[in-house]
Amino acid sequence: MNIEVAFSRLDPACRSASGRAVAVIDVIRATTTITVALHQGCAGVIPVRTLSEARTVARRLDKGALLAGERGAERAAGFDLGNSPAEYVRERVTGKTVVLTTTNGTRTFQAASEAQAIIASSFLNVAAAARWLAGTGLDILIMCAGQQGRFCLEDVVGSGMLIDRLLNISDDSIECSDAAWAAHKLCAAYRDDPLRMLRGCEWGREIIRKGFGADLEICAQVDLTDIVPVMRAGCLVGERS
Amino acid sequence: MNIEVAFSRLDPACRSASGRAVAVIDVIRATTTITVALHQGCAGVIPVRTLSEARTVARRLDKGALLAGERGAERAAGFDLGNSPAEYVRERVTGKTVVLTTTNGTRTFQAASEAQAIIASSFLNVAAAARWLAGTGLDILIMCAGQQGRFCLEDVVGSGMLIDRLLNISDDSIECSDAAWAAHKLCAAYRDDPLRMLRGCEWGREIIRKGFGADLEICAQVDLTDIVPVMRAGCLVGERS
Repeated sequence: MNIEVAFSRLDPACRSASGRAVAVIDVIRATTTITVALHQGCAGVIPVRTLSEARTVARRLDKGALLAGERGAERAAGFDLGNSPAEYVRERVTGKTVVLTTTNGTRTFQAASEAQAIIASSFLNVAAAARWLAGTGLDILIMCAGQQGRFCLEDVVGSGMLIDRLLNISDDSIECSDAAWAAHKLCAAYRDDPLRMLRGCEWGREIIRKGFGADLEICAQVDLTDIVPVMRAGCLVGERS
Repeated sequence: MNIEVAFSRLDPACRSASGRAVAVIDVIRATTTITVALHQGCAGVIPVRTLSEARTVARRLDKGALLAGERGAERAAGFDLGNSPAEYVRERVTGKTVVLTTTNGTRTFQAASEAQAIIASSFLNVAAAARWLAGTGLDILIMCAGQQGRFCLEDVVGSGMLIDRLLNISDDSIECSDAAWAAHKLCAAYRDDPLRMLRGCEWGREIIRKGFGADLEICAQVDLTDIVPVMRAGCLVGERS
């Protein structure tokens, strides 16, 4: 098994998605939020690029669909939900389909569209995601959402934690790229206190400034759930692994 | 002082070059070779993008100019020198101007063209480069050459070592981006044995396969010289720092 890491959706390493199992990681906050939503009983999350695409897709679905998304970290005007995982409580999302658009995270799924399989990962489901990926027998590409093509520490540390779990499952046959080894080393440097890392990284500090600091405590929970959001016909559905 | 790192010449972080002092790093091998050339008494190195541009620029210079460059790590056909630092011996380069084109390294200088100041750094001159950069009083952008836009471990470890030296000069007033902190952590993980890292990273293994393994021993020498290649009117000249 070969493991590659793309540090953002604009990283040339994304071009290797074809034929691989892809894990998309946007720790703060899209893939954390998606994992929470499915863990809370949401029927599925459809990631889309734009606000208008979100409205169109939601209109086509049953009336129960929830319109969700952010721009500049704030809930989009007129939308049911933002991108804060704290909003995705059981009473709100059970049995519902969520159409979600975020600035970086949901767009990364589109960049992965050539892949053989696509899942969402975050600290919350990292062990389950590793089990699911290992079960495919495919080469793996971890796609960090990043920020407009720029490196985000939290996504790379999340990648490194996923690689660490994969190495624990079967380290004999795994070949890592330079980027994958670097992510693994960075995870080792920050794993003892993920919340501190989230509060110190660039986007974490921005999220705190915008009043969403409490979200970081949710994002920092490691292995909270065995739910893996798996892309099935354009919709992320929760599968246990 | 603010420190940013671009992991390749295609990284969006390169767009922040304007107004900054930029250090270009291509450990295997362009900036190592440039540092060796100037350390050995070469008058200056002109980095250019293409083979034909190299021929044109060399023709315009005095007859003594040396035509240098590689494609696929091998010396370009009809050129005087390749990109192996071992070729740049005193007898060959003293007093000469070298026109150099490489696949990634020399093109990175073009990506830095908006910068206020541009130098070349490598393990060989990392402390001198840090002193030179700190002396400018400017914000700093470290541009890793990478491989066709992809992450190369050795360049990022080199960046982290440069950041470590900068923090040692004046750590009070330095603000690092996520990418800069990540590079610094990666340097800490690999600094004890740079040669082992160079032999294990993707491009290092490729260079060994191509028969240039001995070059890695040159590339791994930390603080061999206090020469800093500084861009002056399109030509890198050696300045002591």
